[in-house]
Amino acid sequence: MKYETYKKLAPAALGKVKADTIFKNCKIVDVFTGEVVDGNIGIKDGIILGVSRSMQGRKEIDLKGAYVCPGLIDAHLHLESTMVSPAELVATAAACGTTTFIVDPHEAANVSGADGINYILDQTEKSPANVFVMLPSCVPATDIDDNGCMIAANDMYPFIGNPRILGLGEVMDDDAVINGDPRMFAKFALFEHQTIDGHAPFLPNRMLSAYKMAGVDTDHEASSFEYALEEVRRGIHVHIREGSAAHNLDDIVSGIVEKGIDTEHFSFCTDDKHIEDIVRDGHIIYNVRRSVELGLNPFKAIKMATINTAKCYGLKHMGAIAPGYQADLLIFDNMKDFNVIDVYFKGKRIDPKAEIKVRKCPAALKRTVNLDKVSASDFALPIKNKETHIVGMKPKQIETLDLVEKIPKCDNFTPGGDYLKIAAVERHHRSGKIGVAIAKGYGIRGGAIASSVSHDSHNIIVIGDSDEDIALAVNEIARVQGGYTVVENGKVFETLPLPIMGLMTDVNFAEVDKKLGKMKKKAYDMGVSKDFDPFITLSFMALTVIPELRITPRGLYLAKIEEKGFIK
Amino acid sequence: MKYETYKKLAPAALGKVKADTIFKNCKIVDVFTGEVVDGNIGIKDGIILGVSRSMQGRKEIDLKGAYVCPGLIDAHLHLESTMVSPAELVATAAACGTTTFIVDPHEAANVSGADGINYILDQTEKSPANVFVMLPSCVPATDIDDNGCMIAANDMYPFIGNPRILGLGEVMDDDAVINGDPRMFAKFALFEHQTIDGHAPFLPNRMLSAYKMAGVDTDHEASSFEYALEEVRRGIHVHIREGSAAHNLDDIVSGIVEKGIDTEHFSFCTDDKHIEDIVRDGHIIYNVRRSVELGLNPFKAIKMATINTAKCYGLKHMGAIAPGYQADLLIFDNMKDFNVIDVYFKGKRIDPKAEIKVRKCPAALKRTVNLDKVSASDFALPIKNKETHIVGMKPKQIETLDLVEKIPKCDNFTPGGDYLKIAAVERHHRSGKIGVAIAKGYGIRGGAIASSVSHDSHNIIVIGDSDEDIALAVNEIARVQGGYTVVENGKVFETLPLPIMGLMTDVNFAEVDKKLGKMKKKAYDMGVSKDFDPFITLSFMALTVIPELRITPRGLYLAKIEEKGFIK
Repeated sequence: MKYETYKKLAPAALGKVKADTIFKNCKIVDVFTGEVVDGNIGIKDGIILGVSRSMQGRKEIDLKGAYVCPGLIDAHLHLESTMVSPAELVATAAACGTTTFIVDPHEAANVSGADGINYILDQTEKSPANVFVMLPSCVPATDIDDNGCMIAANDMYPFIGNPRILGLGEVMDDDAVINGDPRMFAKFALFEHQTIDGHAPFLPNRMLSAYKMAGVDTDHEASSFEYALEEVRRGIHVHIREGSAAHNLDDIVSGIVEKGIDTEHFSFCTDDKHIEDIVRDGHIIYNVRRSVELGLNPFKAIKMATINTAKCYGLKHMGAIAPGYQADLLIFDNMKDFNVIDVYFKGKRIDPKAEIKVRKCPAALKRTVNLDKVSASDFALPIKNKETHIVGMKPKQIETLDLVEKIPKCDNFTPGGDYLKIAAVERHHRSGKIGVAIAKGYGIRGGAIASSVSHDSHNIIVIGDSDEDIALAVNEIARVQGGYTVVENGKVFETLPLPIMGLMTDVNFAEVDKKLGKMKKKAYDMGVSKDFDPFITLSFMALTVIPELRITPRGLYLAKIEEKGFIK
Repeated sequence: MKYETYKKLAPAALGKVKADTIFKNCKIVDVFTGEVVDGNIGIKDGIILGVSRSMQGRKEIDLKGAYVCPGLIDAHLHLESTMVSPAELVATAAACGTTTFIVDPHEAANVSGADGINYILDQTEKSPANVFVMLPSCVPATDIDDNGCMIAANDMYPFIGNPRILGLGEVMDDDAVINGDPRMFAKFALFEHQTIDGHAPFLPNRMLSAYKMAGVDTDHEASSFEYALEEVRRGIHVHIREGSAAHNLDDIVSGIVEKGIDTEHFSFCTDDKHIEDIVRDGHIIYNVRRSVELGLNPFKAIKMATINTAKCYGLKHMGAIAPGYQADLLIFDNMKDFNVIDVYFKGKRIDPKAEIKVRKCPAALKRTVNLDKVSASDFALPIKNKETHIVGMKPKQIETLDLVEKIPKCDNFTPGGDYLKIAAVERHHRSGKIGVAIAKGYGIRGGAIASSVSHDSHNIIVIGDSDEDIALAVNEIARVQGGYTVVENGKVFETLPLPIMGLMTDVNFAEVDKKLGKMKKKAYDMGVSKDFDPFITLSFMALTVIPELRITPRGLYLAKIEEKGFIK
């Protein structure tokens, strides 16, 4: 602790003067020992002075036996992929008990580079929560991606030493790691004393070992307990993900409970959780509650949401209720239901109804869709080979299947039955690149859906059953400078503009939610399978680091572990 | 991992070429999950490539089902206080399974400053173990100490950035911390991103909170479970100490077992363990074995000796068997007896019979006793007050009691009954300072025992029942430039020279041990209580940071929490 800070706090810690605030009659969850300790918590200048029964404060709050644990930590998330402004997302989740967010702004970075990262830092600077940034490691995600900006090791220097930067963001380009690409190791070298986040869905044994050996510290892509176990045994800290798109918690936590393994190397994250889901279920508190429902010891669950994560990221003064720790506190009713009573950030109560101040977005970040008008003929798909690769969309998953089927030869494939057209349209550099393919499983009829949210390069992704509607949807996205749109029988049904980098809205959640609800309903009415979120699932179809088959502006990309490359 | 290192290791990790060594048929203790995993361990260039059943190596060692855990870590020790050369102590303990030593060279620093620290770094550079240094924080221990050299924050700069320096060594001057001495906080600031070791025996609640809040991360002075619990609840990582002088393990571990608290914030240390005890009982493996005997889960015990400590000190590549970790391995028979079969450091077997190479000691470090001849009259102790403070030596403890008794007034106190004379003689700067007092409990008759090992200032400490023998013992220590001596009835019975800073021998342990055994036997024959080690216990009597009453060259010092100062 700094000398000046200590000098201010010490008289109150030593009981010579009163603390700012005392929480009395608390059941304190001690994350160091795994006990509940009855006591009072003393706070001054947003710092915990200590736990004691005799402390006095200028303000005393009687918790009447309620439980208090440290504010929760989301170990990994992307603020830009929830559509609303970062400030609104953070404030909403903070009111549910998450007081620390470890964000990877790689969506913003893929569109607008360092300006995108600075936008996230700036927008969250005055949030009622700690927002830390992992510097995006894979911008673009891989060498074969067409994105807006590139971030090399050299571009990272201006961020080094910033206390809000905790390390290197999720390393998705596992090929670059495993094959020893010197450009990737230059980034590793910059962060060797901080944390390096991984992204390793389904690496086989030896590759996973090599990936860890290279320097990766964490992963949040484990979707089964078996794989999570393989990772933890290698010393990879596993962030158990439960968000709007990916639901990995039940399988992993059930495995932990059944096998009885240690949990210090597990944390919780959301990765992507939309505001409507947060409002309905809570944020990281949902992961805690659900884990306890599945039989996990409640202390272990709370530790996975607090101290485990703080230690993983070197946050020495967060994640515990002890002297010198930041006074981020979650007050709740009991260790089973975990109903949130109140949340405190730096010793101040978070008012869930407080007005959220959103800072102005720089104008350049609102003009990022750079694309010539497209027409139906741009989406023609001639079938020339005996066998055709088809994107098999899997229910409730972001992975796809590489289906290989016999489709009759023709000059332009016509969607029908369960077959649709899916396309990715480059939108950063007016390159005219458009990739078109067949998709199965999504289920829309009589129109098209398009989005400029399309991980990780955020080109325009579109799916539909007619070339005209597909072209109309893409042109509509360009018109509004990014967003979601639903087109039905030659007419735009509704568009949700997301003008900030084509990712985020400049209005508030309530307005977004209303429009989005209407658009989702229409999408389901048009036949989209209830196993998908019409927009979120679509937004992952171009992501080249997820198996098995992805659509990109350069065409279909095979993303299997054993075989990678464009389909000719 | 560095790019060049990865490039060398990756082909073997990926199974494209053979590893250097494969340990086959191991029962691997997984410190991340708390399981035993059956498998093979692959190693190249001293680094673990991974655990797999199919790996091949140029050399294959069949362990036939033996257990393998990471090499053990001693979280806190002083190499200089074991008399033998640092290289010999480390090699001896390493052969017992301790492959990482976190040492605080404050004994050497108190005598010879930065030269003393560099001596320890140099002597252990080629040891078959990792020897890391915590930079001594309290040299001298407190403002009232008379030592050889002073180390201020400015003197620490040359050591910053040295990868063998892990942080700031035990902060014994709790007054300086709690009262906010800016000189102490200048040292804290230097190490805010590393680990700051504490030293906090029996601080009352609020003071302990303030001490932690100031920035202290660890403590190894807890001698009871109750106190350890108070520390851990405050986020202080507790090193459970079991050495030659202090025996805290049984009480603390029994409490942990009984209360069932979490153990991630506990580690093991020896602090001071002499070579004869190491050879007889083992080193940190003794702490593990004894803890399991006391009912601690064996995985928890091993974690307290490995990963817990590695994480506490930011040693990212030690304390586990996983890809990228250093191949420091302990092979043992079972999880109950923990008999050591073999120890590997950086993938190479430690040969317990290997010749220990001791580097030459700089000549200046062998001329550190700087003292004029003393005579019996220097130790006269007039009794002038009604009540006299007496150093009450406690069986098996380094703490003392402040006994206040009515001693008849006289010009020079004469030892008798259970009363002895104890004195501390300044020996660094020829200042002539000598403090004399009465001690009780030690039990020598017919002579005196003296030592230049006398924490932490390492003046000469002497105890006996006649002024003549006391003077003779002190002069003998000066003659040999430091060591231990036993004087009986006006004659030197035997002297063990410790010429390196007055702390360490320049011969090997076998010679030291023979002589020491003879000297100890004589001490016990002369009446020294079996509850004490005649020399080690004596060596703590001048330590001003331990309660309650200490003898220093300036006189008796009261070291109670509530009351401190010299006795007039």
